[in-house]
Amino acid sequence: MDHLFGGVEAGGTKFVCAIGKHTGETVAHQEFPTTTPAETIANIIEFFRNNQPVSAIGIGSFGPVDLNPDSPTYGYITTTPKKDWRNIDMRGKIARALGVEVKISTDVICSGIGEYHYGSAQGLNNFLYMTIGTGIGGAQLLNGKPPQVTNHSEMGHIFVPHNMSVDPFPGVCPYHSDCLEGLASGLAMEKRAGQRAEEVIDPIRWDLEVRYLAFGLASLVNTLRPQKIILGGGIVKHGGLIEEVSLMLQELINNYIPIPEISMSSDLNAVRGAISLAASG
Amino acid sequence: MDHLFGGVEAGGTKFVCAIGKHTGETVAHQEFPTTTPAETIANIIEFFRNNQPVSAIGIGSFGPVDLNPDSPTYGYITTTPKKDWRNIDMRGKIARALGVEVKISTDVICSGIGEYHYGSAQGLNNFLYMTIGTGIGGAQLLNGKPPQVTNHSEMGHIFVPHNMSVDPFPGVCPYHSDCLEGLASGLAMEKRAGQRAEEVIDPIRWDLEVRYLAFGLASLVNTLRPQKIILGGGIVKHGGLIEEVSLMLQELINNYIPIPEISMSSDLNAVRGAISLAASG
Repeated sequence: MDHLFGGVEAGGTKFVCAIGKHTGETVAHQEFPTTTPAETIANIIEFFRNNQPVSAIGIGSFGPVDLNPDSPTYGYITTTPKKDWRNIDMRGKIARALGVEVKISTDVICSGIGEYHYGSAQGLNNFLYMTIGTGIGGAQLLNGKPPQVTNHSEMGHIFVPHNMSVDPFPGVCPYHSDCLEGLASGLAMEKRAGQRAEEVIDPIRWDLEVRYLAFGLASLVNTLRPQKIILGGGIVKHGGLIEEVSLMLQELINNYIPIPEISMSSDLNAVRGAISLAASG
Repeated sequence: MDHLFGGVEAGGTKFVCAIGKHTGETVAHQEFPTTTPAETIANIIEFFRNNQPVSAIGIGSFGPVDLNPDSPTYGYITTTPKKDWRNIDMRGKIARALGVEVKISTDVICSGIGEYHYGSAQGLNNFLYMTIGTGIGGAQLLNGKPPQVTNHSEMGHIFVPHNMSVDPFPGVCPYHSDCLEGLASGLAMEKRAGQRAEEVIDPIRWDLEVRYLAFGLASLVNTLRPQKIILGGGIVKHGGLIEEVSLMLQELINNYIPIPEISMSSDLNAVRGAISLAASG
């Protein structure tokens, strides 16, 4: 009999729980909205109690998450902008309640692991997975793994040129104001426009979005040299956005180094990546 | 008898050649100015012909360098701003002339390897080496090695906020105008001030330098999460610069994640890192 493993995709708006084999085949699946830590964690525990037993659980969580096994707050969600979720030991609570090994990493790392095993990053030894949703996060995967495991990239919080006379919006990041997430996240789009990001049609606002994303990606491409960039999250579904970002990225890099292809994530692979994390060595 | 290995530090203003053991002890050493590719490469070959034979040679070169062994231009210097040095097969010319294996990497990767083995990065599993000289380059070292070997970081070319009303200088990078190197390199300092960088005393110019370096490092710290940053190159020798950059970096990161210590390189370890590269696997 194949071992079963659990996966949890812990997102800002919803949680996805699943049970599956190390081959990627899933046998159970449930989603619920992200509410308070107590209620949400109780829902996770209930899901696993009501289903077949698993050998281990992997969590891909919004961050920052303390990934240093030697730290007293190992596995805690730390300085997240979601104040209710600060200093929450999600990993420990689930492990103690279910009596099973629980591994934790970030949502974007698990999405990347999923893309490497089941999606459009198969065979790539260096690619970038980024989500442009309510917040912005990203992970570099080298041969299917993050470069190092004691902490994780916060590439959503890099700084980009911000011309205040063109875009006087101060940014929404509670830590850095006008970092990339502060200027180009779904929340930034919403606060700048005064309407939900998916309802924004003003092309000037989307031009700004293209500009900030292209500047951010240009810095990341120069720093990390990925072969491909996979973008997930609600914002990148806007028609033509990826093509325009690719064009501006090409202009910014200006033939200095090769430009990686940018493609859209299937958004289906995060929980499968969390199962792979649970099943890994 | 211990094998001897050769090291070449190929810099924009000078070349350093040395011969040593894998333990770091050197037995011969020579420096000469960077002139034309033909003359400079002839000097390297002459140095190794006039000294004890070596088992292999490591080169740490200014870049970009094509590090992909499967590429037809493997080992070539490619799109460097130094036009005479574009598309130069330095590695191949030395290997053919001396009949010995020649490995090539970047100057900053070799400096990082040197700091890891002999300098202030010993025991660190994740640190950043950057040089702020005529140009700006950097390398992340994970357990003493670059994260991947088929290409190298171009972190000097990340974009930073540039307020044209405070600093109308357009930048000197021939590819990206006002990237970090375009605004904060020694060449940028020189062109903006109309005098040699080491002679600039106007504090407003140094405040700009601190600002650009701090923004650049903030993006790199968020992306790469190094435990330490080691800075080399002429610009960082300016009194108080590292302390001011550290302070502004702390303000920019604003307690979101821990700040790494910034220290000054000894600038002595690049050629020893190149010897380590030659002696490695």
